Amino acid sequence: MKNVYVIGVGLIGGSMALDIKSIHPKLSVFGIDSNSNHLDEALALKVIDAKATYEDLKQADFVILSIPVDAAVIELPKVLDLISDTCLVIDVGSTKMDICKVVERHPKRRNFLAAHPISGTEFSGPKAAIHNLYKNKTNIICEVEKTAFKLQEKALKLFGEMGMRIRYMNPEAHDKHIAYVSHLSHISSFMLGKTVIEKEKNERDIFDMAGSGFESTVRLAKSSPEMWTPIFKQNKANVLEVLDDYIANLTKFKEYIHADDFEAIYNEMKNTNHIKDILNGIN
Amino acid sequence: MKNVYVIGVGLIGGSMALDIKSIHPKLSVFGIDSNSNHLDEALALKVIDAKATYEDLKQADFVILSIPVDAAVIELPKVLDLISDTCLVIDVGSTKMDICKVVERHPKRRNFLAAHPISGTEFSGPKAAIHNLYKNKTNIICEVEKTAFKLQEKALKLFGEMGMRIRYMNPEAHDKHIAYVSHLSHISSFMLGKTVIEKEKNERDIFDMAGSGFESTVRLAKSSPEMWTPIFKQNKANVLEVLDDYIANLTKFKEYIHADDFEAIYNEMKNTNHIKDILNGIN
Repeated sequence: MKNVYVIGVGLIGGSMALDIKSIHPKLSVFGIDSNSNHLDEALALKVIDAKATYEDLKQADFVILSIPVDAAVIELPKVLDLISDTCLVIDVGSTKMDICKVVERHPKRRNFLAAHPISGTEFSGPKAAIHNLYKNKTNIICEVEKTAFKLQEKALKLFGEMGMRIRYMNPEAHDKHIAYVSHLSHISSFMLGKTVIEKEKNERDIFDMAGSGFESTVRLAKSSPEMWTPIFKQNKANVLEVLDDYIANLTKFKEYIHADDFEAIYNEMKNTNHIKDILNGIN
Repeated sequence: MKNVYVIGVGLIGGSMALDIKSIHPKLSVFGIDSNSNHLDEALALKVIDAKATYEDLKQADFVILSIPVDAAVIELPKVLDLISDTCLVIDVGSTKMDICKVVERHPKRRNFLAAHPISGTEFSGPKAAIHNLYKNKTNIICEVEKTAFKLQEKALKLFGEMGMRIRYMNPEAHDKHIAYVSHLSHISSFMLGKTVIEKEKNERDIFDMAGSGFESTVRLAKSSPEMWTPIFKQNKANVLEVLDDYIANLTKFKEYIHADDFEAIYNEMKNTNHIKDILNGIN
């Protein structure tokens, strides 16, 4: 493996590039991005070694596709058309059904590995790229059996070097679970931010009163709409289902308060405290 | 000032005790708590210097009432009955209307200062007490004009030493704003935790897939139901209003997805990104 191409040099792809460069200093990491400012920035920040275009992909040993999921389903078949027989292509998007479906019958399907490293921050762009973003994080791989065995090995070696633990899942299960543990968190946070901004016209009041509690629940509302809109679009059915559940739970909580049933309110919270033990597992 | 009494030696009161002891090593900090285990723990952890009872309050120069808000409205008049004419009593609860109302006509009203330091963590009890919890945090003082001027000065000096910035507000405005920036965050987080736990019966799936995003939005769901149930009860009207707004915003978001109006989804998020600038002010 000599030449690594990162398509989309933002938070996710850029952080992978940084890790690869520090783990394998002899590799050359090339960046491709539709945003030429991002590409210049990535080069200036040494996130990538050089700029490249699709025409160069025939020399690629490893391609990371890290662009919004609506663009990924369009670009992945094109990328597979261009690469050599020994090249590995991975995508790292937050939805897995559409991307797996779009290359289902592609002649180079075995060169592709569908992955989702569950990691990120609320920031975006090459400036947001950081070392060790993936350390001790879970990477979900879908349809592993459809990737050539030697290329699986290549990918797993690199993921291991980055410190990731691997879980295998089918794309349907992935998209369903991730709607709960990731997509819902983002919507809950965006709408919390919206509700508070709308009400608190005088921003000084938010600024002064918002303690660390508000800050952590609303953190994800800083996330990129460019990235998240296509995720909600691709995972529409699952996202609608989790939103229904969430709104139903909030409505029930509201009704308990309305009916002065504070024993029920207490129990709702007590039973959810159990999340402590689950979260302890994460750290 | 010689003798400080902290009634309720948990996260909030205990952290104040620790700060007072380090700022004024010559002061004696006594603890009073209905939970004798907590009192023993606070003593063992050196959060307090000694245990005390209500009978000792006549020797108090300064009393901090840091107990759940439903207990606070019962205990505050009793405490005021017991203290000397020169003693300052502050409460630090998350609701301010009921507590101000209950001592409105108390003969020692001028010995009382209603405060709300906007700070905390999701943990509780004496073990959760930490140094510098209040540093650079906002402390909202209500009805300051009803407290004797000399006692105001005494309180402000100590709050300044702890690193807090002060804002003045009437209890009605406090309870309304805080419903948005604190109480709603807690409900949103608790219901997020509940929704995910209910769905993900197999906890391994949450454990493995939950990235840092879920963790931060659900953090407040670890909070104490003993503390939060009476807060929602006392701030019922405001909490119902913010919940209505929040549910309405979530429902609108859901309807946009349902109608495939992803331009609207994008705009909802883009307009809320603005929360970045507001939050930057917090840090």
